[in-house]
This record gives sequence, structure tokens and C-alpha cells, in this order.
Amino acid sequence: MFINGLGLIGASMARIIKAKDPSIQISAHDLNQANLDFMLDHQLIDASVDFETGAKEADLIILATPVKQIATSIAELVQLPLKPGVLVTDVGSNKERILAAAQPLMEHGIHFLGGHPMAGSHLSGSQYSNIEMLQNHTYFLVNGNASREDINQFEQLLAPGKLAFNELTATQHDQLVSATSHLPHLVAFTLINTIAPELDEMPIDPGIPSGGLLDTTRVAKADPDMWASIMTSEDADLLEQIDQFEHQLQVLKQAIQDHDTEVIEQKIKAANHERLALEDLK
Amino acid sequence: MFINGLGLIGASMARIIKAKDPSIQISAHDLNQANLDFMLDHQLIDASVDFETGAKEADLIILATPVKQIATSIAELVQLPLKPGVLVTDVGSNKERILAAAQPLMEHGIHFLGGHPMAGSHLSGSQYSNIEMLQNHTYFLVNGNASREDINQFEQLLAPGKLAFNELTATQHDQLVSATSHLPHLVAFTLINTIAPELDEMPIDPGIPSGGLLDTTRVAKADPDMWASIMTSEDADLLEQIDQFEHQLQVLKQAIQDHDTEVIEQKIKAANHERLALEDLK
Repeated sequence: MFINGLGLIGASMARIIKAKDPSIQISAHDLNQANLDFMLDHQLIDASVDFETGAKEADLIILATPVKQIATSIAELVQLPLKPGVLVTDVGSNKERILAAAQPLMEHGIHFLGGHPMAGSHLSGSQYSNIEMLQNHTYFLVNGNASREDINQFEQLLAPGKLAFNELTATQHDQLVSATSHLPHLVAFTLINTIAPELDEMPIDPGIPSGGLLDTTRVAKADPDMWASIMTSEDADLLEQIDQFEHQLQVLKQAIQDHDTEVIEQKIKAANHERLALEDLK
Repeated sequence: MFINGLGLIGASMARIIKAKDPSIQISAHDLNQANLDFMLDHQLIDASVDFETGAKEADLIILATPVKQIATSIAELVQLPLKPGVLVTDVGSNKERILAAAQPLMEHGIHFLGGHPMAGSHLSGSQYSNIEMLQNHTYFLVNGNASREDINQFEQLLAPGKLAFNELTATQHDQLVSATSHLPHLVAFTLINTIAPELDEMPIDPGIPSGGLLDTTRVAKADPDMWASIMTSEDADLLEQIDQFEHQLQVLKQAIQDHDTEVIEQKIKAANHERLALEDLK
């Protein structure tokens, strides 16, 4: 099998597959030699290959680069003589775009299964990869034309990852991930960029930051390059959700201006309820 | 000494004082009999008294009720024959309002020291009190007319709490706490109230919530009564900060609409930098 991209996710998937069966041969490609060296040194991959060689020889191709590169890689795969029965899958965060890019591949009879593990870190690169990061996390599957057998085999291969596989459509996936991941990131960036200049202007020691402040802004440590790419390429749902957020904020702001305790309490009670419901899903 | 209010903070302060010296006699008053019973059963207070009795006999009076009640209690203290040399202190989140309420008390020659420990939980009541919750957290001091000796003695009394005492003015305190606590709470309430209806409308299992989503919304579990009171009584700084937040959000939204990767990356880099700087303060 072949993994293109040994960042945090690609490298963690190699770890899972080697945990399943160390005899499974993994070839991989990455633009960063340090990632390849790390994975070879730790026997987490067996060979460093170019994209074409890796793709042509594989029964399973995992595309684990940033989203824009995934679409390009899929276009390259269309031109290559792939092995019969190969399954192509990916880990990108935008499924509508990737499924659209995979259309010509599927028209060539190649099986494509979109995927997206819901885990991450502000740390990047093979050396931070680990299996635990993915365990007990959702792994969304957006199927193109893979058979039920393809999907079962793929889930079995990743069994040591203890992932919660969840099938849905590309449209559903993109809306859901925008609401539960992209919007919280955007809000955290905005929050810390609001607070920091205010603190900087105050001629005092702000003290030890509270756990609440640190938690609420934790995801603001996320990678600028990756997130700028997500926010510009997956903007339709996000812009609609920003509008909704602005509306909710406006309601609460107006209630504060009006000293309308009833509306504020009602909004906080709803927030309590929904946040606890979220926790129950864990 | 006398503690008025045995909620999470008042009861935790009793624990700290008993850890300093179990022979220190603590009398306390609370409207909730369960809190008094818990504290008496666990020998964390020595007597349940009414407000007047507790206040008149004390060398140190700690007002640990919600903010609105603290102002009322201070007005009651003005009418009582207190012991010479008594120090009155509080734990309320609004220091401008409380220092203003304490003005008549100070004009009677009573020493007043405003205080605010920066710790909390969505759980309330004596039974959830603990010392660890306060350890390595900031305890803001906004002095009215306490002597340096009063302040030193107070800090010594709370030594087992391992608190980071930090003196500042009421205005500075209120602006800082609004930015670092009230605004993040308001944003978390707004965020979960935006996401939840969107998820509810989708005919799918949303999967296991990510750590990022749970962290970003954790403080949305906070108490509705307490936070509605904070948001209506401490609204000046907060409303200004909401405006700033809306401005920052607007900039990012516009950049997403324009697919302006450069501005988005610049905002995320700033957020990275400021969030890491915050962590360094811990």
C-alpha cells in the first residue's frame, strides 16, 4: 500500500496499519525528507518512493496531504496505470470538492472512498504522530463508488485505531465539519485577537490565565497555512454559519444593553443544555 | 472570623484557612442549610450564625455571596457595631461597584480590601469546594483602605491556597476580567447556541465531538443565574469588547468572502502568537 503525505494524520495512519500487521508493506512519499527519515528509522514505512511508483504498485492508496494537493494527486492518478481492484482513499477536510475531483477517476472504474478522521493537533509532522490521537474519535466516510467489501476491509485495516466510522454524504459532512470545527476555530482566532490587544494596552500584570480562557482559545494555536486554506476553500457553509453566529451574538448583546435578565438566562440555559448534550455524545 | 456565603468559593476559602490553622474559629452564614450542614459535618466551620452575630464578633469578615448580595451586606455592616480593627473583604467579580458600595463603610473607619479569586466551576455549593481549585490561580486584590499589614496578614492566612496575589485598581480589574472571563463566556454561549440548532436539523449522527469543540465551548456550562447577573451588572466594558470582537469577526469574514489568504494567515499567525504568549504566563 502507498501513503502520499506523512504529516500528523498520514504518519498516524501508518502507525495504525503497522499495529494491525507489521508485515504489511507500506511505501510512502513526502516532500519533507525529515518525515520520510523518521518513518523509515522507526520502521513505520518500508520504502520511500516517488508518487507514480508508489501509486502504480499499490492495492490501497491513501492520500494524506493538504486538501488542494489531494485534488491534484487524484488528477494524476487518472493518468496512471493503477493495479486492478485498487482502492483510493483520502483524509481531507472538504469532501464535496474531493468527491468532485474523484469523479473522472471513478469513471475509469477506480474505487474511491472519501475519508476524514476528526482529530488533529497544532503540532505537525511525522514525529508527532501517534495512534492515541485517533482512538475514540470519529472517522467520517463519504463513499464514492467503493464496494461494501472495500469499506469493510478498510475499517478492518484500521482496527487498532479504535475509530468510530460514520458514513454520510459529502454535503452533510461539509456542513457538519464547518459547524463543529471550522466555526469554533474562527471564533477562537477572533476571540484571542480581541482580547490580546486589550491586555497589551493595560499597564498591569494580567495574572495567570484562567483555565476557561485557555480552553476557549486553545484551538487558536492551529496552523495558519492549513486553516487559511480550509477557510478559503470551504467557505459556503462557514459564511452562513458566521451569519448565524453574528445573529446569536446580536441577540445577547441587545439583551445586555436592555438589562434583559430573562433573555440572557434563557440563552445561557439553552447553552448549558446543548453543551451537556454534546458531552453525552462522547 | 466570619464567612458570609458558603458557595464554591466561600467554602473553599474556609478549607484554606482551616488548612493554615485548624484552631482558627470560623463562623458562617448561608441561606442554604445543606451548605451549613456539610461544612459543620466536615469541621470546616465551627458555628452557624446569623449575619449580624457573625459580623459583630469577627476580626475578619469575608463576603462570599453573589455580587448583588455583597453590596447589600456592606450596607448592613455600616449599621452594625463592628469590632475595632476588623478587616472586611469580599470575593465578588465586580470591583468598581463593590468598592463604591464600601465607601460609606470606609468613611466609618472600617478597613475594606476588595478581592477576587480567578477560579470557578460550573458546579456550585460547599460539597464541591476544594483547595486545589484555587492553587496556582490569580487572586486579584483591589484595595480600599486596608493597611499593608492587613494585606500581608490576609495573604498569610490564605498561604495554603498557593494563590498568586495581584494588586490593581478597580477599573483595571473590571476591564481585565471582562476581557479574559466575561467575553469568553459570552462567546462560548453564542457559539454553542449557533452550532446546536444546525446539528439538530441534520438527519445524521454528528459523531463523537472533537476535543477542540468541547474545549472551545466548555465554559458554556456556567451557571445561568450567576452569569446573567454578571452580564447585566458589569456591562460597560463587556459591550465595548463585544464591539471589538464583532469588528475582528467582520475583518476575518470579509477576508473569507474575498478569498484573501494573506489577511487570513496574518490573523491566524497573530492568534497563534498571542495564544502561546498567554500560555507562557501560566
